[in-house]
Amino acid sequence: MKAAILVIGDEILSGNVQDTNSNFAARLLFENNIGVAHILTVADTEKAINEGVAYLFEKADLIITSGGLGPTKDDVTKTALCSYFHSELVFNQSIYDDLVARYTRNNRPLNLLNRDQAMVPAVAEVITNDVGTAPIFWIEKQEKVLVTFPGVPSEMRYMFEKVLLPRFIEKFSGGHISRTILQVIGIPESDLALKLTEVENNIESANIDSEHYKLAYLPSMGTIRLQIIGSGTNKPNIEANIDRFKEQIIAAAGQYIFAEGDDDISTYIGKILRAKNATLSTAESCTGGYLAHLITSVSGSSDYYQGSIISYANEVKIKELGVSESTLKAFGAVSEQTCREMVSGCLKKFNTTYAVVTTGIAGPKSDNSEKPAGLVWIGVGNKENMVVRSFQFRRNRIENIHLFAVSAMGMLRRFVVGES
Amino acid sequence: MKAAILVIGDEILSGNVQDTNSNFAARLLFENNIGVAHILTVADTEKAINEGVAYLFEKADLIITSGGLGPTKDDVTKTALCSYFHSELVFNQSIYDDLVARYTRNNRPLNLLNRDQAMVPAVAEVITNDVGTAPIFWIEKQEKVLVTFPGVPSEMRYMFEKVLLPRFIEKFSGGHISRTILQVIGIPESDLALKLTEVENNIESANIDSEHYKLAYLPSMGTIRLQIIGSGTNKPNIEANIDRFKEQIIAAAGQYIFAEGDDDISTYIGKILRAKNATLSTAESCTGGYLAHLITSVSGSSDYYQGSIISYANEVKIKELGVSESTLKAFGAVSEQTCREMVSGCLKKFNTTYAVVTTGIAGPKSDNSEKPAGLVWIGVGNKENMVVRSFQFRRNRIENIHLFAVSAMGMLRRFVVGES
Repeated sequence: MKAAILVIGDEILSGNVQDTNSNFAARLLFENNIGVAHILTVADTEKAINEGVAYLFEKADLIITSGGLGPTKDDVTKTALCSYFHSELVFNQSIYDDLVARYTRNNRPLNLLNRDQAMVPAVAEVITNDVGTAPIFWIEKQEKVLVTFPGVPSEMRYMFEKVLLPRFIEKFSGGHISRTILQVIGIPESDLALKLTEVENNIESANIDSEHYKLAYLPSMGTIRLQIIGSGTNKPNIEANIDRFKEQIIAAAGQYIFAEGDDDISTYIGKILRAKNATLSTAESCTGGYLAHLITSVSGSSDYYQGSIISYANEVKIKELGVSESTLKAFGAVSEQTCREMVSGCLKKFNTTYAVVTTGIAGPKSDNSEKPAGLVWIGVGNKENMVVRSFQFRRNRIENIHLFAVSAMGMLRRFVVGES
Repeated sequence: MKAAILVIGDEILSGNVQDTNSNFAARLLFENNIGVAHILTVADTEKAINEGVAYLFEKADLIITSGGLGPTKDDVTKTALCSYFHSELVFNQSIYDDLVARYTRNNRPLNLLNRDQAMVPAVAEVITNDVGTAPIFWIEKQEKVLVTFPGVPSEMRYMFEKVLLPRFIEKFSGGHISRTILQVIGIPESDLALKLTEVENNIESANIDSEHYKLAYLPSMGTIRLQIIGSGTNKPNIEANIDRFKEQIIAAAGQYIFAEGDDDISTYIGKILRAKNATLSTAESCTGGYLAHLITSVSGSSDYYQGSIISYANEVKIKELGVSESTLKAFGAVSEQTCREMVSGCLKKFNTTYAVVTTGIAGPKSDNSEKPAGLVWIGVGNKENMVVRSFQFRRNRIENIHLFAVSAMGMLRRFVVGES
């Protein structure tokens, strides 16, 4: 059984927009033992969509489409599907009622285009879009299935993962697949690979005809997700083997592992702070709010997170954090000394259990000193102790900011876990 | 004349790696009037590559391939091409000499696989890869051309843009293409479409055999990029028409347009603040640093941005921003009154020309009041005036935070532009 993805959109063919929906769908399908063999992007025209569907139905049993369902004139997917499946557009009262309810809730007036959105191919099973206005169509043709998704990534992702994926698995997935994720911070990928040489050999030698194991390194800006996948028919055996490999990885590189599963570093930090009944504040210069954003991206973070001073200007460092003018003059804003005074000032201002601070140069330009862009000083402390460290990254501005903030989270983790 | 892109790689079909090469190539080709009509991703097998090439040659005159040329998978793509073009692999001394020189320079030993890398399809013109070891093949078939690129993004990008693109333009680009972008904030896509109905009709009716015009809506979380494209042979005529459509759009929806071209809202805000020699501070509750992050994502933002108080806890709102306890008690943190006091407190604390503040409920849970998740109060002010407004979004936490922050930028824009 094979799946295929049809991406519809001139904006993707012109390079104006990077398609990420197909990557999202392919990964989830793959992890659930439904292999994608073709991803095809075509134009927003009836002819191109028709030809694309025809070609992919030759190759695959399941076609996922993305895009071309919005209310504007450049979206012609519905008409194309009607022509391909020899169907016609009919008015769907329940979709229309749902639209009306959604607009009423948001105090927005309906317009004529919205009525078009309730016109659906007669041949389709219509599935309400819980997070947007374009419904999803499930169309069967003999044993094959085509399912349409909106192009807006947030809508596509939500409806794909939460609503449709279970149906795909039930209908198409054979055999068993198990997966474990360990999340790593604070070590480069090549050093990690070196530590895991023996485990990798063990994983490879566990491969037999009816069972397959694989360790994947999935780095993403400062953290690495280690994924062990096993697939085959003997579920207990696969799960036992994956557990064994997991323990071997923990034995080899345990001090860098901050979480099992999909928790990101922010969620993990939230859990350890909550467990200790501790509070946290931040003071940010170069990260400009991004560190606070990572922390507050977790629902319920107000239980432990108090707030931040974003001290972009030096006067703010002096006035709000009590950094002394002489320190700034002697060592500059990006220095161990300033960083230490920021930690003390932050703890004092917010009276929290812990404080984390950043001061650095995100780039691309330097700060008119001899210090290079990509340099950051990060400090973490409580009332008794303080750890201050510098890092040097060499990415662009946005990536440096991200790496600074993730490194700060990594230092906070070690500090909080290390003291207990 | 149409182009197509063939992406080769199991790692893309499994969702492990996001393909970005096709986006890069498509954009550069499009900008040079070589339209890409198909992007197809297939597996690392001879059969899949062969079928992919055959399908795309039916549709296009130029095929760009990406991937499948590394030292391990070498044989598959090259063998597939030999079989498709009825050719065979031959040893290429100059490629081999180049490899030897490259390895010697880097003090790396050659291995057997390297000799395989010097085996090339007899039918191909071989182009040395200036930044890697896999050469590029230019293969012609009647009037059509297939060109292979390595999958490593840095190699692909360099060789595509610097070496091959000029050849593509010389051989394939005819006519002219013009594009204008208008960026919109503060209006839903369907309402915007309604305002532009007449302009859209004008654009459609300008299409003649030798000229084509199109208006595309490219929404991205709170802003919409409106793109007018025209192509054909009569450059002055195309540019005049695009200018005319642009003026019509501005007449119909001018108050929502914040920029022409690719500037994002943060860059745009930076430009208007700099032009006025003005300064900015923020106070954030629900956006938790994300608003400051948007502002400081722009290089040089320290010229106008002073800093922020992230007042996640109510005590911080009281202590740092001077919000009164009685206001918080009577109206709650998420209220017009608190929002107003935050604006005043922020202006006072940072002594800036403008202040923007947010207080809301990012969700998914409410704040233990009867107020719904997704509700936000945004305030913007200077020493004389203040505007405060509420918005209600219904997305997930991260998207709500993004929409809150972008809406705050939109309100800041109107406030700053409106007063001048």
